[in-house]
Amino acid sequence: MSDDPQDRAQRAVAALYGPDRASQSLGMQILTVAPGAVSVGMTVREDMTNGHGICHGGFLFTLADSAFAFSCNSAGEATVAASGQIDFLEPVAVGERLVAAGRVLWERGRQGIYVVDVMRADGTLVALFRGRSHKIGKTAS
Amino acid sequence: MSDDPQDRAQRAVAALYGPDRASQSLGMQILTVAPGAVSVGMTVREDMTNGHGICHGGFLFTLADSAFAFSCNSAGEATVAASGQIDFLEPVAVGERLVAAGRVLWERGRQGIYVVDVMRADGTLVALFRGRSHKIGKTAS
Amino acid sequence: MSDDPQDRAQRAVAALYGPDRASQSLGMQILTVAPGAVSVGMTVREDMTNGHGICHGGFLFTLADSAFAFSCNSAGEATVAASGQIDFLEPVAVGERLVAAGRVLWERGRQGIYVVDVMRADGTLVALFRGRSHKIGKTAS
Amino acid sequence: MSDDPQDRAQRAVAALYGPDRASQSLGMQILTVAPGAVSVGMTVREDMTNGHGICHGGFLFTLADSAFAFSCNSAGEATVAASGQIDFLEPVAVGERLVAAGRVLWERGRQGIYVVDVMRADGTLVALFRGRSHKIGKTAS
Repeated sequence: MSDDPQDRAQRAVAALYGPDRASQSLGMQILTVAPGAVSVGMTVREDMTNGHGICHGGFLFTLADSAFAFSCNSAGEATVAASGQIDFLEPVAVGERLVAAGRVLWERGRQGIYVVDVMRADGTLVALFRGRSHKIGKTAS
Repeated sequence: MSDDPQDRAQRAVAALYGPDRASQSLGMQILTVAPGAVSVGMTVREDMTNGHGICHGGFLFTLADSAFAFSCNSAGEATVAASGQIDFLEPVAVGERLVAAGRVLWERGRQGIYVVDVMRADGTLVALFRGRSHKIGKTAS
Repeated sequence: MSDDPQDRAQRAVAALYGPDRASQSLGMQILTVAPGAVSVGMTVREDMTNGHGICHGGFLFTLADSAFAFSCNSAGEATVAASGQIDFLEPVAVGERLVAAGRVLWERGRQGIYVVDVMRADGTLVALFRGRSHKIGKTAS
Repeated sequence: MSDDPQDRAQRAVAALYGPDRASQSLGMQILTVAPGAVSVGMTVREDMTNGHGICHGGFLFTLADSAFAFSCNSAGEATVAASGQIDFLEPVAVGERLVAAGRVLWERGRQGIYVVDVMRADGTLVALFRGRSHKIGKTAS
């Protein structure tokens, strides 16, 4: 198999997305893949709204967390989230199309720090995510 | 209507849970209600698993975020999350029953800070959440 | 030497405080020591004020971070901070006496999560800190 | 007086740095100023070391917090930190020269989110900071 980082990232993300029932059941699609940087799309559904009638913050986090997971697993080593932090910037309505763009900020040994921008189609930021990753040592693909 | 804080908390939580399609579609139930402290239950389903075969961190966050939302809205004033932070402590498997217990740490004016412990039925911690809330000025119930 | 956890905590904290020039030059004192829970005192000095004339947030963090460090090193294994998060709740004036009370929330293997309440003498909270610790494997005392 | 954003940023930062005894007593210098983005330098002193003999994390936070404060006050409106989060990436030794480069990520109304990279002279990251700011409504300069 190819050792090209781009090929490896695409294989690793496909291998992780295949069995990812959560991301799939929420209608997420992989939009772009590069080593350490994956973006994911999702449209907000009726069943994602909270008691205030807007998108439940949990689904904004889940979208960002998926982009984070695909980004930090893109080198093909099984990696999990140790923690995540999100700032909610704007309310998001049903039907809105969102893109979560993840990228690595720093990595050394088993530890990594990633950020994810969650945006509307027009580029408006709706949430900012930062996560800390931890490699668990198995090879994912 | 009663001005008793416990009565008001129960009314406010019921009013917020009623239209909360997200929490309901994920199978969350309100377990206990006190002023500033609400606990919520959820069982991890097959469609909540990620590519590593364990519960997607996004659903642990969403469960905690719901407990946070019910806790910080329990005084009857519409309140939203400004930010949330979660530490993932242990992997969670399909079929596990989780409880998220929220409570206020601090509140002044429109600002509040809440914590949520996410536990298995036996009390083992699986995630720790902390959120910052912001009152938006309308009365929720 | 005694294997009593309380004795060990007192030895470990004394061994760490002795060469800690930062905590000492800021006038911090160890107030109470228990396994996993150490409180530290400090009085805000003129040279700790920022351009708004109040205590620079960095010194509130530093006080909390010291209480965190003593708490997470109290078992005698060298442990460092991986990350820290602080919410600033109230402005603090010159001359105010502060107490930072740390305690462990969770620990497993090399990882730990600690919280620190930073309070005035009357118990008013002025800042809330949460940190993630990482054991580095050497024995500190 | 000039309404040019760059002139205003330089005036606002100078007005805040002048009475900032904390930043000055720690030997911080303002390196570069642009609207929403200020970098600050500091050399680690003997009295900044902790019990492990390395720079106390509190001083890395304080350096980042100063860069954050100057960045978020650079429009001339008095602004304070609501919260700050730091990831410690590498130990820092006495004598090392550090630069903290702050910049705005997002701002709306009274709220803002800023990041600060803390680096060695060679550009190596030693800490990553993110803060949430809150305008308090007075004009700083």
